[in-house]
Amino acid sequence: MSTEGQVIHCRAAVAWGPKQPLVIEDVEVAPPREGEVRIKVLASGVCHTDAYTLDGHDPEGLFPAILGHEGGGIVESVGPGVSSVKPGDHVIPLYIPECGECKFCKSPKTNLCGKIRMTQGKGVMPDGTSRFTCKGKVLHHFMGCSTFSQYTVVAEISVAKVEDSVPLDKVCLLGCGISTGYGAAINTAKVEEGSTCAIWGLGAVGLAVALGCKAQKAARIIGVDINESKFEMAKAFGVTEFVNPSKLTKTVTETIVEMTDGGCDYTFECIGNVATMRDALESCHKGWGESVIIGVAAAGQEISTRPFQLVTGRVWRGSAFGGWKSRSSMPRLIKDYLEKRLMVDEFVTFTKPLDEINAAFDLMHQGKALRTVIDLF
Amino acid sequence: MSTEGQVIHCRAAVAWGPKQPLVIEDVEVAPPREGEVRIKVLASGVCHTDAYTLDGHDPEGLFPAILGHEGGGIVESVGPGVSSVKPGDHVIPLYIPECGECKFCKSPKTNLCGKIRMTQGKGVMPDGTSRFTCKGKVLHHFMGCSTFSQYTVVAEISVAKVEDSVPLDKVCLLGCGISTGYGAAINTAKVEEGSTCAIWGLGAVGLAVALGCKAQKAARIIGVDINESKFEMAKAFGVTEFVNPSKLTKTVTETIVEMTDGGCDYTFECIGNVATMRDALESCHKGWGESVIIGVAAAGQEISTRPFQLVTGRVWRGSAFGGWKSRSSMPRLIKDYLEKRLMVDEFVTFTKPLDEINAAFDLMHQGKALRTVIDLF
Repeated sequence: MSTEGQVIHCRAAVAWGPKQPLVIEDVEVAPPREGEVRIKVLASGVCHTDAYTLDGHDPEGLFPAILGHEGGGIVESVGPGVSSVKPGDHVIPLYIPECGECKFCKSPKTNLCGKIRMTQGKGVMPDGTSRFTCKGKVLHHFMGCSTFSQYTVVAEISVAKVEDSVPLDKVCLLGCGISTGYGAAINTAKVEEGSTCAIWGLGAVGLAVALGCKAQKAARIIGVDINESKFEMAKAFGVTEFVNPSKLTKTVTETIVEMTDGGCDYTFECIGNVATMRDALESCHKGWGESVIIGVAAAGQEISTRPFQLVTGRVWRGSAFGGWKSRSSMPRLIKDYLEKRLMVDEFVTFTKPLDEINAAFDLMHQGKALRTVIDLF
Repeated sequence: MSTEGQVIHCRAAVAWGPKQPLVIEDVEVAPPREGEVRIKVLASGVCHTDAYTLDGHDPEGLFPAILGHEGGGIVESVGPGVSSVKPGDHVIPLYIPECGECKFCKSPKTNLCGKIRMTQGKGVMPDGTSRFTCKGKVLHHFMGCSTFSQYTVVAEISVAKVEDSVPLDKVCLLGCGISTGYGAAINTAKVEEGSTCAIWGLGAVGLAVALGCKAQKAARIIGVDINESKFEMAKAFGVTEFVNPSKLTKTVTETIVEMTDGGCDYTFECIGNVATMRDALESCHKGWGESVIIGVAAAGQEISTRPFQLVTGRVWRGSAFGGWKSRSSMPRLIKDYLEKRLMVDEFVTFTKPLDEINAAFDLMHQGKALRTVIDLF
């Protein structure tokens, strides 16, 4: 029986408030309106950004809400005017949309489509309303995705179509962390062949940066992390050398500058710590080293350095979703995955049913999982 | 009578100590040694960096010394092994050399030749000694130039040859400020046609940035300065609009973001103030705006911002000597001057004899001079 045009009753993990475990609830998902797509979510990764909001660190975090933004699913139905996807299409929801029309989309320099930024930030669809209710209460959307629900509604411009043949329980991770790290090396830093790179934080994003550096033929990829249990696995992702800041007699910067005869060509901060952001910049080579901030710092925190660091040729950048124009870059990402330049399956440390989603957050906090993928059905 | 191989007795402005006026003294200038060039200095600009050291702000400033680094002169004699210039050549001393051999010179990304950096920073020639004495005391060299002396000795790699036909009392300014600002727009920011730029500080460097933006066909060039007496003249250098931060009801950043529908494509800080460096960055357009730090901040001061500014696509850079490879770029700069793309004569507000050099510093501090050129003979 078709569910098109009907309210769907399904299960979702609801975040009722900050610092509370998610609760699996029966929710109602309204049909998609104009320019919207309703998706049956088969799988979703659990990312640090979900935890950042759930743990109450985001001062703009809205509750109650359905979190999740690394999903993969199948289009269930589409609202009026939707032409780029149809029911049955396999898709990945995107937390950065691509409208193709705004000044950001028209610029080749950025991927930060501004079309629905305001409403997305308020936890609602572009028309200002939510499609989720639970126990009579309206639930907020999250990052335009809300993939911790068996069904979700997203804007058409927030959906990337993928081939039916790719496993959604793996490529769902292209919705955030992997694409973010991989693209930071390829699009934002534009790592050059033979260069020396360093990566702060060897979680999923950091390892995806390593894959990007490797794809760009970097000669050396230095991993910086205080958790040495990550080092062995990181080698498989292309990291060639390791630095454990907690075991040094010198500073990280002094150590890396010495290891590299002057500093790195490219550095990447994947932790979200303003002190390591500074370390990453100052570990760049004078004259040309570029540092890319990927990690999200705690609210209100600031980065600092002496301006002399920049005047002598270092460049400080940042990257969001790896600089990929989200919808139009997905075929390239899928191609890199299918041709084995971009590892994806290897990031899935655990798979858990929706009921055990809180355990997935625990595994992440304990540093035991690169990614836990939630199986929603 | 040839002075080659002889100690030359001449007049120079000596900085005996910080926070003291310069004193015109008779000094001795030893002959050039291997790889060195002795220059008869005809003219020298007075730059803020000279004042920065003289006023004791540079913790690494060395005294006694002969300051000055915006000179123009004629080669008097050369030491053994010097092949690129000969006596009689018109030259500009360069505070950033170009050896052509070090890893910096070999990289197309930077102009920061490292060959003699260590000795230059210690106020001596590459062999570790000084060529200047006065009243039995050894004087330090300054920035590898020391152009406040009728004769100076510099490394061969620190000399750019110019055509005999160009006026040395004007193009001496290409030794620092003008080239610095002009190149920051052309080489460091690589300003694109039609872009919107903003410049903090409308002194010589800031106006040279405006010339660079204009040469790159920027559509709008916004000048930011609290001294409105500079505005009228700045128009001649290409500045199209003005903001006086002391007369705003909003912040400079809010004002500029509003004026430009989201921020500038390129901004330049030519003051050396860490607060305006932040303003300049945050006045950049989300997604692609790039900010270039040119001004030299006081010792120990740091720049700060929220990392979100970079993650959302702004880029923070710096520029030294406008990114020009110093020796090999001089022909291009002279060509731009001769073809009137690069104004130079217009920067010379006053010309003073060496005896009045302290008055030149006063004029600079009072904001009354873009540049005062010292006539040394």
